Amino acid sequence: MHQIFDAALEINLLHANQEGADHNREHFDRWGITCLNVMSSPGAGKTALLERTLAALRRELKIAVIEGDMTTELDAERLRQYQVPVIAINTGRSCHLDSKMVSGGIHRFAQDYDPAEFDLVLVENVGNLVCPAEFEVGEHAKVALLSVTEGEDKPLKYPVMFQEADCLLITKIDLAPYLEVDFNQIMANVRQMNPHVTIIPVSTKTGEGLEAWFEWVRSQTNKLRLAAPVSTVH
Amino acid sequence: MHQIFDAALEINLLHANQEGADHNREHFDRWGITCLNVMSSPGAGKTALLERTLAALRRELKIAVIEGDMTTELDAERLRQYQVPVIAINTGRSCHLDSKMVSGGIHRFAQDYDPAEFDLVLVENVGNLVCPAEFEVGEHAKVALLSVTEGEDKPLKYPVMFQEADCLLITKIDLAPYLEVDFNQIMANVRQMNPHVTIIPVSTKTGEGLEAWFEWVRSQTNKLRLAAPVSTVH
Repeated sequence: MHQIFDAALEINLLHANQEGADHNREHFDRWGITCLNVMSSPGAGKTALLERTLAALRRELKIAVIEGDMTTELDAERLRQYQVPVIAINTGRSCHLDSKMVSGGIHRFAQDYDPAEFDLVLVENVGNLVCPAEFEVGEHAKVALLSVTEGEDKPLKYPVMFQEADCLLITKIDLAPYLEVDFNQIMANVRQMNPHVTIIPVSTKTGEGLEAWFEWVRSQTNKLRLAAPVSTVH
Repeated sequence: MHQIFDAALEINLLHANQEGADHNREHFDRWGITCLNVMSSPGAGKTALLERTLAALRRELKIAVIEGDMTTELDAERLRQYQVPVIAINTGRSCHLDSKMVSGGIHRFAQDYDPAEFDLVLVENVGNLVCPAEFEVGEHAKVALLSVTEGEDKPLKYPVMFQEADCLLITKIDLAPYLEVDFNQIMANVRQMNPHVTIIPVSTKTGEGLEAWFEWVRSQTNKLRLAAPVSTVH
């Protein structure tokens, strides 16, 4: 969030975004879709994680992706190779997706597909450990990635992301032997910010930990399916 | 930069920041100080680079640090061990330093020290590959870091930072053997965004490339010293 020298405007901005996010979530609920908002620093491995996730789960779950990038469709093109709908949103100079952008993506998606046939929408946010955590897009749960290469102190220095996360993936654990990094300290710092977050260490290179991540994703979709359907959506 | 749904306000925000940055730079010029704004994703190694820089150069250059972090003084405390003045600025929820925050830091610095005795102010910005590049703080040059662990595509996906950088350090090159990363492609993508940027590959772990970085820092301070002094500052 920028300091925009006007507290009232700042509150309006977040309030308008939240209303839009709630509206997007109502759409997802009506369609029986679980939406996960995937966030991290640039280069922590969001797209690699989604590649592995699509490869593993696309036959048991009907999945679509909303792919946020400032410019380019590089990540969207990587994910389209898995034969799932990928809606690319270029944020331009904006450092995060917001609910209005995602609403636009949802409407494009609903023009080309029947959303009621889908189980899961994965939103890949812009690489940024600060702002995406403050702007909901309509997700049911927030997934944050922290690479072991980023160091132990990041949960303390960028607290909002770690406080908001429902699931925290510690990525690139295959690199840990080559780093002077204290894995237990990373875990302790995450827990200090968020005692109840689900922590899953993974490597998309070796596959370690991915089955636990897939199982967490399944549990999220089941959760929504087992809940009562929402009948009144405007 | 957030989309703040009001183009005029956005322009005013950037304009006010730029005026403040120009004013800060006038102060630095009057004092004969070169100011470098050091920026990157979280965990690319800004603080480790500054530690090595202070250790190597603090005897030949009089250095102060302005240390931006959302919360905590963890990085400031690491750098204070090098017996240089470190002014800590907590940005709270803001995802970057701005010229007003740095102005506050400069005034705290000037209360405790005689700035005219200093040669170099290193500003460590909040870890964020997007917004810091748009908000000048009064620097004479922008230094961006990109870790090899972040992948080849980042210059294309986060263009503003790479277009704005005067010096681009490719960090953690000691990890390259353990990554499936194409170093030449990183270089090509940086050059595509910014044909004239100085690129210096470094490892703060092995020391590789650091002498070239120190030499670049020296060249920046010499540049300012050899320029005519500015006489009219308000």
